[in-house]
Amino acid sequence: MTPKKKTYKGHSPKRRKTIVVKNRTKSNRTFQRGQKRPTTMAKGRRGAKLKVMIMGGAEEVGRNMTLIEYGDDIIMIDCGLQFPEEDQPGIDYIIPNMNYLKGKEKNVKGIIITHGHLDHIGGIPHIAPSLKNPPIYGTKLTLGIIDKRQEDFAGKGSLDTREINPDAELELGAFRVEFFRVNHNIPDCVGIIVHTPEGTLVHTGDFKFDYTPVMDKVAEFDKIARLGTEGVLALFSDSTNADQAGHQESEKTIGETLENIIKDAEGRVIVGTFASLLTRVQQIVWDAEKYGRKITVEGYSMKTNVALCRELGYLKAKPNTFVSSAEASKLPDNKVIIMCTGAQGEGNAALMRIAGKEHKYFRIQPGDTVVFSSSVIPGNERTVQRLKDTLVKEGANVIHYKMMDVHAGGHAKEEDLKLLYTLIKPKYIIPIMGNQFMMHAAAKVAEGLGWDKDHVFITKNGQVMEFSGGEGRMTKDKVDTDYVMVDGLGVGDVSNVVLRDRQVMADDGMFVVIVTVSAQTGELIGSPDIISRGFIYMKGSKNLIEDTRKKVREVAKDKNPQDAANPMYLKNKLRDEIGKFLFKKTERRPMILPVVIEV
Amino acid sequence: MTPKKKTYKGHSPKRRKTIVVKNRTKSNRTFQRGQKRPTTMAKGRRGAKLKVMIMGGAEEVGRNMTLIEYGDDIIMIDCGLQFPEEDQPGIDYIIPNMNYLKGKEKNVKGIIITHGHLDHIGGIPHIAPSLKNPPIYGTKLTLGIIDKRQEDFAGKGSLDTREINPDAELELGAFRVEFFRVNHNIPDCVGIIVHTPEGTLVHTGDFKFDYTPVMDKVAEFDKIARLGTEGVLALFSDSTNADQAGHQESEKTIGETLENIIKDAEGRVIVGTFASLLTRVQQIVWDAEKYGRKITVEGYSMKTNVALCRELGYLKAKPNTFVSSAEASKLPDNKVIIMCTGAQGEGNAALMRIAGKEHKYFRIQPGDTVVFSSSVIPGNERTVQRLKDTLVKEGANVIHYKMMDVHAGGHAKEEDLKLLYTLIKPKYIIPIMGNQFMMHAAAKVAEGLGWDKDHVFITKNGQVMEFSGGEGRMTKDKVDTDYVMVDGLGVGDVSNVVLRDRQVMADDGMFVVIVTVSAQTGELIGSPDIISRGFIYMKGSKNLIEDTRKKVREVAKDKNPQDAANPMYLKNKLRDEIGKFLFKKTERRPMILPVVIEV
Repeated sequence: MTPKKKTYKGHSPKRRKTIVVKNRTKSNRTFQRGQKRPTTMAKGRRGAKLKVMIMGGAEEVGRNMTLIEYGDDIIMIDCGLQFPEEDQPGIDYIIPNMNYLKGKEKNVKGIIITHGHLDHIGGIPHIAPSLKNPPIYGTKLTLGIIDKRQEDFAGKGSLDTREINPDAELELGAFRVEFFRVNHNIPDCVGIIVHTPEGTLVHTGDFKFDYTPVMDKVAEFDKIARLGTEGVLALFSDSTNADQAGHQESEKTIGETLENIIKDAEGRVIVGTFASLLTRVQQIVWDAEKYGRKITVEGYSMKTNVALCRELGYLKAKPNTFVSSAEASKLPDNKVIIMCTGAQGEGNAALMRIAGKEHKYFRIQPGDTVVFSSSVIPGNERTVQRLKDTLVKEGANVIHYKMMDVHAGGHAKEEDLKLLYTLIKPKYIIPIMGNQFMMHAAAKVAEGLGWDKDHVFITKNGQVMEFSGGEGRMTKDKVDTDYVMVDGLGVGDVSNVVLRDRQVMADDGMFVVIVTVSAQTGELIGSPDIISRGFIYMKGSKNLIEDTRKKVREVAKDKNPQDAANPMYLKNKLRDEIGKFLFKKTERRPMILPVVIEV
Repeated sequence: MTPKKKTYKGHSPKRRKTIVVKNRTKSNRTFQRGQKRPTTMAKGRRGAKLKVMIMGGAEEVGRNMTLIEYGDDIIMIDCGLQFPEEDQPGIDYIIPNMNYLKGKEKNVKGIIITHGHLDHIGGIPHIAPSLKNPPIYGTKLTLGIIDKRQEDFAGKGSLDTREINPDAELELGAFRVEFFRVNHNIPDCVGIIVHTPEGTLVHTGDFKFDYTPVMDKVAEFDKIARLGTEGVLALFSDSTNADQAGHQESEKTIGETLENIIKDAEGRVIVGTFASLLTRVQQIVWDAEKYGRKITVEGYSMKTNVALCRELGYLKAKPNTFVSSAEASKLPDNKVIIMCTGAQGEGNAALMRIAGKEHKYFRIQPGDTVVFSSSVIPGNERTVQRLKDTLVKEGANVIHYKMMDVHAGGHAKEEDLKLLYTLIKPKYIIPIMGNQFMMHAAAKVAEGLGWDKDHVFITKNGQVMEFSGGEGRMTKDKVDTDYVMVDGLGVGDVSNVVLRDRQVMADDGMFVVIVTVSAQTGELIGSPDIISRGFIYMKGSKNLIEDTRKKVREVAKDKNPQDAANPMYLKNKLRDEIGKFLFKKTERRPMILPVVIEV
């Protein structure tokens, strides 16, 4: 690929502009750099303490959120979602728990977003309204993605989004906030500098250092280095790839591999990737233009993101590079790139529909090259393997380039963290945005550089960290970070009981036993009804069903006919006895639902 | 680790011994090598065709089985199980479909097993009895594992197992069968040579070439090379790691990494691995003995396998190397190795119980080194990640050595396949034991060496291959290979309908609506009952339940009171209307089960 000419000229004072902040309010003022600030700002308040809590992202990759609180002022950094675990069937996603902010809604002076990926923005539609819509600050692309996504949540209203550029400064209550540009695999990512009355905190967001980024400028090393000379109390940094040795790849290098594949392909090229992996999308555009191919974009989220990025000027493409599906289907094979969602084997995504012969325009044909340009999210391996099998069965040449990963490609590795820590020289290092294993790996990196164990905090979700007099400490206090699960329209209405029931039914199905009894005598009337789902194939198991019905009769009859019906007693007895009976016969434990009708 | 002195002296005629075959029968004779064979054997029969079918293992890693049929004679190579996919909740495992052999049971002259892993032996307890227990041939360790496992299947009776060594020859109907030793990560693995009236077939089983194997001898290159000079019609070979470049690691190299970890550990060492990964177990024993540690074995399958291998003389250990859990718990930390099951995060395995503070003797303590000596089986990633998180939270140093893998460590990679193909020089190459993606990778290797595309078959499960007159062809015929699912005591009684129901209930739960109506008028009697499980937390959703009850009443009332009850009509109506109603309210689709009681 032709490396695009970089116009980045370094960071010089004359390039600094007034910060664009929409809907300025009195309390959330912005300043030009160098402008005199109100003197009150960095002063401590009597009795106030600086507290920091990682509300999500300290025990998982996902639902990232950091709360910084001083007296009556709170700022929130990121508001992400987490995809569910295997033992949470049917759940759409999980968002941070906001119980701690109940009654403190007005204290939230702003939500600051580092970048536009779902694990950093996905909680906003649910959480911002519940906090009475505090201002949301982010760069242009980040806010574009947030606003676009909000359209999918009809009835949640619009958000108070306020655009910043990396040179902005915000005064948010007791905090003065600045930004520095970092690299990742989506453009327009920033790290956050929070000047507090107790010292300066730095939050990296997801980041890597990339000397040859795509669609983006190089991370602002000057600002980062200046932080090191000015003094930083605590650094909260990305640890997702801390357990990997070496330096992270540049987006440019990742793109070169992709370019070679596209260059060598003789037929159509079908690239499956994440819609949010915008740098990869840009590279494919450049490759298409270089090798005389047209691109058709397939899949709702891919179409939306591409349109948004072109509209905002992030994605650079010649006017005729993109064509419609219909147009692409008429072009010669070696002139086409199909860029689509579904590299994770998602059921209804474009690539799945193409492979499953359900796509309106495209079927796999021999000669096609299918590139999976994203590595597999843990949990999706087998689905992806099956998709690849289907594709090769249909005649495609399948290339899975493991390096091209929304996580692996975008996060600082061990050597990058060493550079960050050395530049910023924080007094305390708190690895975040990873699960505990990754955070421990990041802590080892810090300790290897000479940080004292006591100055590297491994926090749990919700654990309260306090900073005062230049000293930090991990307290034993923990605020509520229990899972808040989103399922359809429901937020938080799926409890662990519900999940456990789903798992029981997933494993062995359920078995409904319906008996009608006389209210006076408790005697069984008619024949018991049996309904089973997900337990056994009923048509093939007539004997078992008959035996069970007989057993139900036995259980229901075994009472003193003089007594009145006791439905609760009978229900429990049926549940126990029929459960045992079926286990003995099948070694399965379906959920038993006894229904007793009194007439 | 001290490399154990190899006593392997190469393969010379004088070392050949009479083959041990228990329970010889007339029809299944065995011969000493060089002994004159009945002349009938290699002769073709008029009208008979040589057919080969891969019954499992051509579209998955698992349920390996190959059928070779000539006239009225059939031999089966391997009889494995497959672990279920994500969309098969509650299923224990899947076994090969034996519909093709219905009515042909007596034709099955023998089941030949390549090695003792479950994906090669797991179907035996279900399938051998259904075929009227044909003789099962395998090496000593392989049969030991098969017989041991059979004890868990009370009521299935005992098997007709007959031990062979790699120098055995068997006459099984029209087939003469020989063996050659290969390496893997369990000892005593053999490849199978089947001389048929149409030519010689070779089946590798799972294999790698290992010049420095553990608990095992080097693969018999002399026999393999001789096959190449004698002429092989078709080679059926392992393709599990065909998409990986280079040569597979030796078990010795893998062991060296483990040794360094054990050498450097200051506290206890806890090794989680597969019970069937016996070479790893042997290495741990040697390391323990070298560095003055005692081993306690935790977990049922690990205890069973270790006991079996010691009994059969495969596992070499000093008499006092193994100690009981109680003894180990009293030793100094740096004298202990805990060897346990559970490296895949299996719910009830020893490592999980230790991490979950549920083990009788052991808890994680700071200073422990936990080694995951097996890579993660696809689908288990998130569970394993959570287990690792728990372990680091409890203070352990966790080392996950990815190379140490039951699959990755045991299978031929690209360069190994090149050696195999070049040595055997078969006319046809049929990659098996992998999914289609891996088989295509193996086919590419063969084509890269000059094999014609027409001589490399990519078969599907059950596809019939025919060989005659020295020519092979893939037919369009396909025998039944539909999934046979084992769930508890049931074999094949879980249909796709049952699985679909389980998935629906796993995603959104279920919702039972019970209405009692008058048989004469169809009028609703009393209040409808509602039971929901896995759908919504009922106590927190009283309004929804009340609204739904109201809706049920509406639906039930909406009929002509002059008509008699029509329970079927009412059921369907309730299913439809309540389904729609709940979706509108919640965007979830629970399984709706309407129950109409007529009184």
